[in-house]
Amino acid sequence: MTAGKIAGQSLLGIAFEQIERVYARAARLGHLRLRGLQMHIGSQITEVKPFEEAVRKVLPLVTRLKEKHGLEFFSLGGGLGIVYQPALASGAAAWWQSRAARNLLTPQVYAARLLPLLRPLELKILIEPGRFISGNAGILVTRVEYVKRTGKKNFVIVDAAMNDLIRPAFYDAYHEIVPLRRHGRPTLKSDVVGPICESSDYFCKDRPLAKVGEGDYLALLSAGAYGFVMASNYNARPLAAEILVNGRRAAVARARQLVKHIWSGEKVVAWLR
Amino acid sequence: MTAGKIAGQSLLGIAFEQIERVYARAARLGHLRLRGLQMHIGSQITEVKPFEEAVRKVLPLVTRLKEKHGLEFFSLGGGLGIVYQPALASGAAAWWQSRAARNLLTPQVYAARLLPLLRPLELKILIEPGRFISGNAGILVTRVEYVKRTGKKNFVIVDAAMNDLIRPAFYDAYHEIVPLRRHGRPTLKSDVVGPICESSDYFCKDRPLAKVGEGDYLALLSAGAYGFVMASNYNARPLAAEILVNGRRAAVARARQLVKHIWSGEKVVAWLR
Repeated sequence: MTAGKIAGQSLLGIAFEQIERVYARAARLGHLRLRGLQMHIGSQITEVKPFEEAVRKVLPLVTRLKEKHGLEFFSLGGGLGIVYQPALASGAAAWWQSRAARNLLTPQVYAARLLPLLRPLELKILIEPGRFISGNAGILVTRVEYVKRTGKKNFVIVDAAMNDLIRPAFYDAYHEIVPLRRHGRPTLKSDVVGPICESSDYFCKDRPLAKVGEGDYLALLSAGAYGFVMASNYNARPLAAEILVNGRRAAVARARQLVKHIWSGEKVVAWLR
Repeated sequence: MTAGKIAGQSLLGIAFEQIERVYARAARLGHLRLRGLQMHIGSQITEVKPFEEAVRKVLPLVTRLKEKHGLEFFSLGGGLGIVYQPALASGAAAWWQSRAARNLLTPQVYAARLLPLLRPLELKILIEPGRFISGNAGILVTRVEYVKRTGKKNFVIVDAAMNDLIRPAFYDAYHEIVPLRRHGRPTLKSDVVGPICESSDYFCKDRPLAKVGEGDYLALLSAGAYGFVMASNYNARPLAAEILVNGRRAAVARARQLVKHIWSGEKVVAWLR
């Protein structure tokens, strides 16, 4: 979303140049109470600079609205982007020393750069760090059902599918895929695909992956946000179980859905019998 | 899917040139019984010609497999495509007289052109007409929550969202959208969008639609296949109710899901308390 940049072109929010008029009108309505303003420059932003620029742009407006309407809060919206692709191939340790890592949007950087701008507002500041908290805290574990080698392609067919994690198929999003057990096997360009009966059911395409075989387990990383919440029962596939892990402790936080639950809400209409 | 054309490039099925080898091997396995062959040239095909060509290509193979392994059935796969976009603007009646309509893949055309080819096989013939049966038999009814006019765009914000019908957002698929009540209002280029907090939540973009206002109802047509079955609880949105209609009779075939049902499967793990 770029509501700030191409004001009025987005389906979300109020165009920048209309905000004061809208607030003035809302202030005249007896049953509404103006409490704050939220900006939203987009999701999954992993640098602090766009936030800084947006805050600088919005600050004078927020100040005016606060003076006129007595706002209580200003919300920064959009959260903090997370690392989906840490280039593990070159080693995680090496990555964390890299330039990308140094420029990474951490809560520390976010606070250090934005708080000095925001403090003079003397407003409650709201943020939306959902993905940052849960995104990299969740993985989707799946078993390799079959490996299909053809002339040019290596298809790793797993028992998870796009109904469990739709981001790769829907947004062409990257999720790191690693075998649960480390081994020294060579890598092979592979497509990791699900068992749903359509060609869009994939998790990655032509990606160098450690060679795996039937029965091996893979973990799809960064599945803790926009994963389970976007899951469906497509192909009559029950929703996956959710397991909470803390150190060496693990417990089922949500049991696997059963097939019978999928149609438990359906009933045969009387006049059809 | 074009498994037939670019054999071996598809994640689905067996490459054409490998089929006889695979069947020969399967025939040697004591616990497997070879019962048939299915071809699959793709989904949502609305002409008979590709089926005819594929059947002609596969026929000699099916005949050989039948002789060798005693098959019982041949499945044509892929179903019959349906009309999503009947160009209602120019009038439904006019459309049904059009060239597109004359070339349309009806069950009659399908049978007339394929049965003469298939009959000599003396095999049971299977087809997959799910979408053809249910696709145009279902509609998604939604209410206009708000109309947002900006400089260049007219956004019709409705209470259905991509979690209810993901085909437009996911496949960029066309679904005809018509107001429930006919009126003589002029058309206006509009985006019909849902209330989910991301810009991909849309049903159509820049489409000439009869001007609508808050409280009007719209029907998204052809929602009877790949609609409800792909629905999710994204944004904590409960699944829609399903209503069965026959002439003037209507009954709830599936009650609307409640918010509490969404997390009814979750439990607080003991060691977190």
